[in-house]
Amino acid sequence: MPIDNSNMLKVLEDFPHQCRTALELAKGMAVSGKIDKIAVAGMGGSAVGGDLLKAYMHNSKVPVFVIRDYKVPNFVDENTLVFTVSYSGNTEETTAAFEDALNKKAKIVAVTSGGKLGVVAKKAIKIPTGLQPRAALGYLFFPMLGVLANSGIVDVKGKEIEEMLDILSKTDDFKTVGERIAKKIGLRTPLIYASELFGAVAYRWKTQFNENSKVAAFSHVFSEMNHNEIAGYQNINKSDFIAIFIRDIQDNERIKLRMDITKEIISSRIDVEEIFTRGDGMLSRMFSGIYYGDFASYYLALANRVDPTPVTVIENLKKKLK
Amino acid sequence: MPIDNSNMLKVLEDFPHQCRTALELAKGMAVSGKIDKIAVAGMGGSAVGGDLLKAYMHNSKVPVFVIRDYKVPNFVDENTLVFTVSYSGNTEETTAAFEDALNKKAKIVAVTSGGKLGVVAKKAIKIPTGLQPRAALGYLFFPMLGVLANSGIVDVKGKEIEEMLDILSKTDDFKTVGERIAKKIGLRTPLIYASELFGAVAYRWKTQFNENSKVAAFSHVFSEMNHNEIAGYQNINKSDFIAIFIRDIQDNERIKLRMDITKEIISSRIDVEEIFTRGDGMLSRMFSGIYYGDFASYYLALANRVDPTPVTVIENLKKKLK
Repeated sequence: MPIDNSNMLKVLEDFPHQCRTALELAKGMAVSGKIDKIAVAGMGGSAVGGDLLKAYMHNSKVPVFVIRDYKVPNFVDENTLVFTVSYSGNTEETTAAFEDALNKKAKIVAVTSGGKLGVVAKKAIKIPTGLQPRAALGYLFFPMLGVLANSGIVDVKGKEIEEMLDILSKTDDFKTVGERIAKKIGLRTPLIYASELFGAVAYRWKTQFNENSKVAAFSHVFSEMNHNEIAGYQNINKSDFIAIFIRDIQDNERIKLRMDITKEIISSRIDVEEIFTRGDGMLSRMFSGIYYGDFASYYLALANRVDPTPVTVIENLKKKLK
Repeated sequence: MPIDNSNMLKVLEDFPHQCRTALELAKGMAVSGKIDKIAVAGMGGSAVGGDLLKAYMHNSKVPVFVIRDYKVPNFVDENTLVFTVSYSGNTEETTAAFEDALNKKAKIVAVTSGGKLGVVAKKAIKIPTGLQPRAALGYLFFPMLGVLANSGIVDVKGKEIEEMLDILSKTDDFKTVGERIAKKIGLRTPLIYASELFGAVAYRWKTQFNENSKVAAFSHVFSEMNHNEIAGYQNINKSDFIAIFIRDIQDNERIKLRMDITKEIISSRIDVEEIFTRGDGMLSRMFSGIYYGDFASYYLALANRVDPTPVTVIENLKKKLK
């Protein structure tokens, strides 16, 4: 019997709606003045939002830094826009990074449902409470995108957003594929790969397997994995690991070739599954890639008879840290 | 019987000497003009050199970017110093990144033993040939540090270098610990952890296990692993994985506490080994951490009756890519 006591399924199914709502949250909020660097301080799902922003802005002249730490780098200054992102608003690394960014006179926008950050941040986008942070990725990401669009730093086309919402709303497609992948994985440890640009999507899969399914999972990127990790395949067993390649229509031609050849080479040692992102726009491609993984991790939890929602180990750790 | 047909042991034992030689290679080479960003383009061991440089410069006002890709970011410009690092000089990602950086009018310094990069780069530091790229980390890293010191961008104290060389020259200490760790690992998959700052050291361990020992290995950092990966420990077996924590005397107090508590929590599911970096200076601490892992991966190869030197899978892949 499946276990989903807190109804994670409903939260996942609601994701397209969450993205639509999240897009409204930054309405009217902009930052002014010179901005020559952007930093996103956050942990876990909040940091993944930063990684996605970095990927979305990969062609930008403004560098994006993702900071998973108690401090922000020393080059953060008054021309740096720092998003401090914490679902609860109480993540200790992020509240410390907020203080540090404040001392460095950065322009700060917080994204949080409340907590300490909700109190101390002068400029904050309040997001709805009541979710697991990892299930709030839409709320954690789109407000940042909105602020940047309002400030003229990124140009997000309405068409691109509509395409993404349209693709994500075909929820059943994602469920079907996710369930199929979960079945294929079985008791094996999933190793998720994508291009460097889609590394955040692969990492999100990994973390969702960790937190929802409560299993070990790891991710890496092409072509870096061709320079080291692939050599480790010499001594692994099909019964222990399974590889999942997340492929994108716009992957560099050499990356496509590397993925094909790698699959050919490693297929004798490990099963390889392939997932293709959907759509033309970067938002569609990133979030469709993520949505498949969200369902895969959900169904893997059920298959393992684990409730996807609570993360007891992490809660336990937090208590001991106090 | 141990297999070490190409005498990797000798190369590893020679590492302190390699570092000393490498420090001389940048003599007299400096870059002039405004530099407000530094990028290191490289793959595998060359990219790890970049990660180490980024860690070494973590307090700098000049941001360091590590690029494992065919392109450099669009914010690379005439005020960006780009190191293009490839041991062979023929790494396709790095030669492509070189061309891209050239088009973007960056200041470029190549670090290479020859190849295409040795021909096309106007400013290049030539390093000795004949090693496996991963065994040439000293040659790949210290020339960059030398150029930055000569250019007044970093301040490297002679005392710091002497301390490092002194610590590394106690090779037997590193061998003993490396051999002990390899024995502990046995047939298990090593999971290597360090602080965010020492993430490159943990990643180096991982890649050395992949390439020298030809086994799966993964790395992650504190405190990010506390937000996701740790939840995956709920369903792992002591017989499958082993955790190795690389600890540093200057780890943030909260990180130290997190490591202690994490160890306590996960010890029922997985054995945890701890390695302590040595010395006061950042160079000593980084390279001592790395040197332990180099020997651990070497002895794990021998224990698995695998020659640590050849990486047949990677060579095979490169041939197919042509």
